[in-house]
Amino acid sequence: APKKLLILPGDGIGPEIMREARRIMDWMAQARGIRFDISEDLVGGASLAVHGQPITQQVIDAARAADAVLFGSVGDPKWASAGFDRRPEIAILKLRQELGLFANLRPAKVFDSLVDASTLKPDVIRGLDIMIVRETVGGIYFGTPRGIETLPDGSRRGINTEVYTTAEIERVARVAFDLARKRDNRVCSVEKCNVMESGLLWKEVVTALHDREYSDVELSHMLADNCAMQMVRNPRQFDVIVTGNLFGDLLSDLASMLTGSLGMLPSATLGAKGEDGRTPALYEPIHGSAPDIAGQGKANPLAQILSFAMLLRYSFDMQEDAAMIEAAVSNVLDRGLRTPDIMSAGRTEVNTAGMGEAVVAE
Amino acid sequence: APKKLLILPGDGIGPEIMREARRIMDWMAQARGIRFDISEDLVGGASLAVHGQPITQQVIDAARAADAVLFGSVGDPKWASAGFDRRPEIAILKLRQELGLFANLRPAKVFDSLVDASTLKPDVIRGLDIMIVRETVGGIYFGTPRGIETLPDGSRRGINTEVYTTAEIERVARVAFDLARKRDNRVCSVEKCNVMESGLLWKEVVTALHDREYSDVELSHMLADNCAMQMVRNPRQFDVIVTGNLFGDLLSDLASMLTGSLGMLPSATLGAKGEDGRTPALYEPIHGSAPDIAGQGKANPLAQILSFAMLLRYSFDMQEDAAMIEAAVSNVLDRGLRTPDIMSAGRTEVNTAGMGEAVVAE
Ligand SMILES: CC(C)[C@H](C(=O)O)[C@@H](O)C(=O)O
Ligand SMILES: CC(C)[C@H](C(=O)O)[C@@H](O)C(=O)O
Repeated sequence: APKKLLILPGDGIGPEIMREARRIMDWMAQARGIRFDISEDLVGGASLAVHGQPITQQVIDAARAADAVLFGSVGDPKWASAGFDRRPEIAILKLRQELGLFANLRPAKVFDSLVDASTLKPDVIRGLDIMIVRETVGGIYFGTPRGIETLPDGSRRGINTEVYTTAEIERVARVAFDLARKRDNRVCSVEKCNVMESGLLWKEVVTALHDREYSDVELSHMLADNCAMQMVRNPRQFDVIVTGNLFGDLLSDLASMLTGSLGMLPSATLGAKGEDGRTPALYEPIHGSAPDIAGQGKANPLAQILSFAMLLRYSFDMQEDAAMIEAAVSNVLDRGLRTPDIMSAGRTEVNTAGMGEAVVAE
Repeated sequence: APKKLLILPGDGIGPEIMREARRIMDWMAQARGIRFDISEDLVGGASLAVHGQPITQQVIDAARAADAVLFGSVGDPKWASAGFDRRPEIAILKLRQELGLFANLRPAKVFDSLVDASTLKPDVIRGLDIMIVRETVGGIYFGTPRGIETLPDGSRRGINTEVYTTAEIERVARVAFDLARKRDNRVCSVEKCNVMESGLLWKEVVTALHDREYSDVELSHMLADNCAMQMVRNPRQFDVIVTGNLFGDLLSDLASMLTGSLGMLPSATLGAKGEDGRTPALYEPIHGSAPDIAGQGKANPLAQILSFAMLLRYSFDMQEDAAMIEAAVSNVLDRGLRTPDIMSAGRTEVNTAGMGEAVVAE
């Protein structure tokens, strides 16, 4: 039976960049006879508008039943003041939690042809290739107690709780060590063990797992503040970074920005292998929904297309097809085609569809 | 009576860079007849070695009695495994908490003569002048419950709690707004209100205070992950940033690194004005104790010297003397003198004492 693929374009530029990813799927069907069982649904502001909630139970069930989810982006200023439980972002948080998608893989890679797009000096970032593994179903994002309470004197108090257990730390560290073995075999574990006990436990558990099962991998530890600095000072020192939900949120965005091309970077979020042998997985561009340029054909579809390639690689074990798409993207860039976000002197500007067509042509 | 100044050199390079700050004080006494009531004591690893604790009650009392504290740096790998309560870092955390030093002011300024020292392109950072105001006695650093507990099955759970009250948010936001009025009149408030209720409260309280008392200041809001990106993409968009303890820790270090010269950056941490009209204040370089180069005369003393200048400016209202020291530092850099951390081709390398002497000579 063909693999089940759930497509969730979301808000803002989501639908238009997803259209370009679908162009690749259409080409695969026509040119190579590869068919998926594709369905598409609403999330984020798009779902709020129709269903009054950022994600419906039906979509969560469909995601659970799918072999992989290809996600666009969520977020829409229309819902900015809709209240904490009716934010478009709830869609992605719910999918992570309901499907147990605990390991977010965020590659930050510099394309040779885009080395000048970064605000960092080319010498500092040429060849950069970091993989950040971020825990995504624990930590302060989901810990309780949480909320805002009103005190007797009428003032208020906001509370969130960071919680990490041995098991939560171990399973995400395992993903990092396994990935490192296929890369440069180095893992840097990041926390604030000097001020947070949850970070101290993080460090101890990662170290113990390393010594027990991964002593062939080089393990180092770094405080989160220092890691933010080192990323700017000398980012190429890193291979795989493993960290918690909140630090991972900041550090992975920071690492992405080093590359100078947010519009190029895909991500994967993986869960635990189930009894049926399937690993729940969601793939999405790391950039947001960019409502300011939505619907204008300006969006760069490459992160969405590369997210699809990542999906083929990790979820469907279609290494060859993934590599083919990745090579096509590289070639298109080498040929000088650029969407507005990465445009520079002497290159050829194309719109969203133009970029998608060029990748198919390659 | 002369102002009371408590000097706490601490660990690593702390003592040797503090020696250069004292050289300036000596010069002020000799050349300008300005005398302080100076005392000096141990903190961090230096205190652990003698007293078995990172800071003694006596030092805390002395800090409370002083008109200002000039701090070096703490941290020593010798105590890395000494347990959570016997870390050198406790010294600075305790001073912040016991003296109520709630507002950490971290300027990130690019010196024209060092614009090439950054890993960012000169065009991106020339003229950069950000002031980060970080809350330092609340948030996840001090919230309870906290700790590591062992679960029935023998696995463990690490917990920390982020708490912010209306009053805590208001007083630090007030510092930011007041500073903005003396600068470019813009404040950017940073949190993760899309996933944390403590961040949502933060945003609401800052907004309400702004609308009530500071509507002349331009206020914007940014998510912490986006802020980390924007600092790399276009750091000059920021004037004053106000944020909580944990985000401030990462973002202020990140901002510092943009300047390419950690060894140059001072900081101030201020408390609330007491009944006696005094505002508790501590000044320290933003860099760490750098144990790897300690005792070798390689350390850059300028951050320590500029911290002293900041002390004169904020605590002793000695604007002229502060400006004189800051100008001397600029001139020394313009003359091409460089400690190893900022050395580049065609400049003159000097050691720690050489740099201190050059500043005095200017
Ligand atoms: C949309 C938002 C809730 C999310 C997060 O903070 O995790 C996003 O920033 C991300 O990194 O995927
Ligand atoms: C020494 C450490 C506890 C401290 C912190 O995390 O606050 C330091 O990194 C800082 O920024 O002053």
